[in-house]
Amino acid sequence: MFDYGSNMMNGLQQRDTVGVADIAAAAERIAGEAVRTPLLASALLDERVGGRVLLKCECLQRTGSFKFRGAYNALASLDPDARGRGVVAVSSGNHAQGVAEAARIFGVPATVVMPEDAPAIKRDRARRSGATVIGYDRSREDRDAVAAAVLAQSGGVLIHPYNDPRVIAGQGTAGREIAAQCAGMGIVPDAVLVPCGGGGLGAGIGVAIRDAYPEATLTLVEPEAFDDYGRSLRAGQPIANTATSGSICDALLAPSPGTIGFALNVRNAARAVTVSDEAAMAAVAFAFRELKLSVEPGGAVGLAALLSGGVDGRDRTTVVVLSGGNVDEAVLREALSRPAI
Amino acid sequence: MFDYGSNMMNGLQQRDTVGVADIAAAAERIAGEAVRTPLLASALLDERVGGRVLLKCECLQRTGSFKFRGAYNALASLDPDARGRGVVAVSSGNHAQGVAEAARIFGVPATVVMPEDAPAIKRDRARRSGATVIGYDRSREDRDAVAAAVLAQSGGVLIHPYNDPRVIAGQGTAGREIAAQCAGMGIVPDAVLVPCGGGGLGAGIGVAIRDAYPEATLTLVEPEAFDDYGRSLRAGQPIANTATSGSICDALLAPSPGTIGFALNVRNAARAVTVSDEAAMAAVAFAFRELKLSVEPGGAVGLAALLSGGVDGRDRTTVVVLSGGNVDEAVLREALSRPAI
Repeated sequence: MFDYGSNMMNGLQQRDTVGVADIAAAAERIAGEAVRTPLLASALLDERVGGRVLLKCECLQRTGSFKFRGAYNALASLDPDARGRGVVAVSSGNHAQGVAEAARIFGVPATVVMPEDAPAIKRDRARRSGATVIGYDRSREDRDAVAAAVLAQSGGVLIHPYNDPRVIAGQGTAGREIAAQCAGMGIVPDAVLVPCGGGGLGAGIGVAIRDAYPEATLTLVEPEAFDDYGRSLRAGQPIANTATSGSICDALLAPSPGTIGFALNVRNAARAVTVSDEAAMAAVAFAFRELKLSVEPGGAVGLAALLSGGVDGRDRTTVVVLSGGNVDEAVLREALSRPAI
Repeated sequence: MFDYGSNMMNGLQQRDTVGVADIAAAAERIAGEAVRTPLLASALLDERVGGRVLLKCECLQRTGSFKFRGAYNALASLDPDARGRGVVAVSSGNHAQGVAEAARIFGVPATVVMPEDAPAIKRDRARRSGATVIGYDRSREDRDAVAAAVLAQSGGVLIHPYNDPRVIAGQGTAGREIAAQCAGMGIVPDAVLVPCGGGGLGAGIGVAIRDAYPEATLTLVEPEAFDDYGRSLRAGQPIANTATSGSICDALLAPSPGTIGFALNVRNAARAVTVSDEAAMAAVAFAFRELKLSVEPGGAVGLAALLSGGVDGRDRTTVVVLSGGNVDEAVLREALSRPAI
């Protein structure tokens, strides 16, 4: 297994943390290629929640999720010689698309290792960006072993989906934008809800938000059966999930918190809550019907936490990150077949 | 039939035109209630079109379409005594929702006259905002007669969907935002594509855009079988459609150009193009799959014109207004059942 924690990938010793300067540098790198996604309000949602809600729409990001930010920043930060050997990603799908698209922009080959049960849309889009897709069986094969074989064969550079300071800094640009957008509206956020798999998005956003708004709370939102982050925060050290599959929130099934992001999330006093798959699907339907946005289940868990009452949004301003929109059409149909909430 | 052209509604003589000052005043009125919708870019769309495309996402507007802008501005402009008697709207659905929601905000009753074949989502949403919905048969009943009876009975104020300077000024705020957003990005738009039914949105946007960017061209986009605006522009005077129903673009079936907007569109040198229902549905599917946005067929005709090649977007900057997102789920399923374009 890779020693992601020591972060000695490709012989480059890096700092094992991320600060606001790293996020500012990442923002400059991605500016020409990533979308500055809108921070949207919905009067209907405000009424439902009983407070002000602002939606950071990363479903409208290039490749349909926030992952493009970190992937592009990582590739842009690589030494051109190293980058030229090509990049490798291990991902449930959104990071794969982000890396594939970033590699296409830089004109270098990408190989992505994805579970065979990943949504078809994610596999197809990674291929469309020119990546070679290699599948593995999530329940029987060790993805790190598959990735190691690919790395050995290709000689490429591994872009980890979350335990890489360049990736976390890239994801943090979403938080930097949230802070600037709140300031532009004259709004001080009380709380930020971030969908959480390996914890990189929450870590990056937390650094940026708490620099601008030190009183804002950071809440990571996980699927019920994948509450490794909540358990890890309570234990004070990273603890792995027991399950490897079995939630509709395919984007949030990382095996355990990344160590770099975990330290940042601890420092930022993050707390974690869980939502059921039912609540996530209801939020997908709500987003489609009421917000006119395509949001995938894993991207909708923050909204689900608010709508289901798991997080109390009354009489306060809550920023909710809608982290991805790559929902298979069958899953959307399934979500829409349920009664409206 | 109402003499919409003379605009002597409710005993108030109004100027029969709209200027940038009216739009600026409307922008102030709606600022606390309407969404400043994003002007989004998509790298994928740019590549497909071979030029730069910016999407003004009115599907993300309150009530799911631009109509809230004009409806709210009209209600806010009314004398409080007149407004207190309640408002009446005749609409295929989006204007009805806009008026219903604006009336709810002002705490006054709303009655909306809608064709019985309007999408269920639009009828339901008007009711949800508290409006009384009265249906009529588009092919057999005269909607103006139905509306006249409602007006006589209720004593309320008619809010015309497009032939009202207050409504046009409200829709023009979308154009004012586009101009400011382009300026903020340092971009000069070459062309603006606007879905067209009665022509009020195009008229309002045209006034605002050509004030800021006099060289930008204005193109109104209509369904093939409802090309009254194109024929009217060529004839130099308003000509009615022959059909009253039969396009999937339910939002764009106004019987003929409104006189106030027509004069403005002539002055702004608007041209008109048509798209097929097939192309509109393909654009709905493209918007869902690639842009992660729910766009209704009538709201997608500008995008359809670009994607189908009816409007050439190569080597230029084109702003496309996605004017509404209230698509019935069955229509979306139908759109998604076709091969991807």
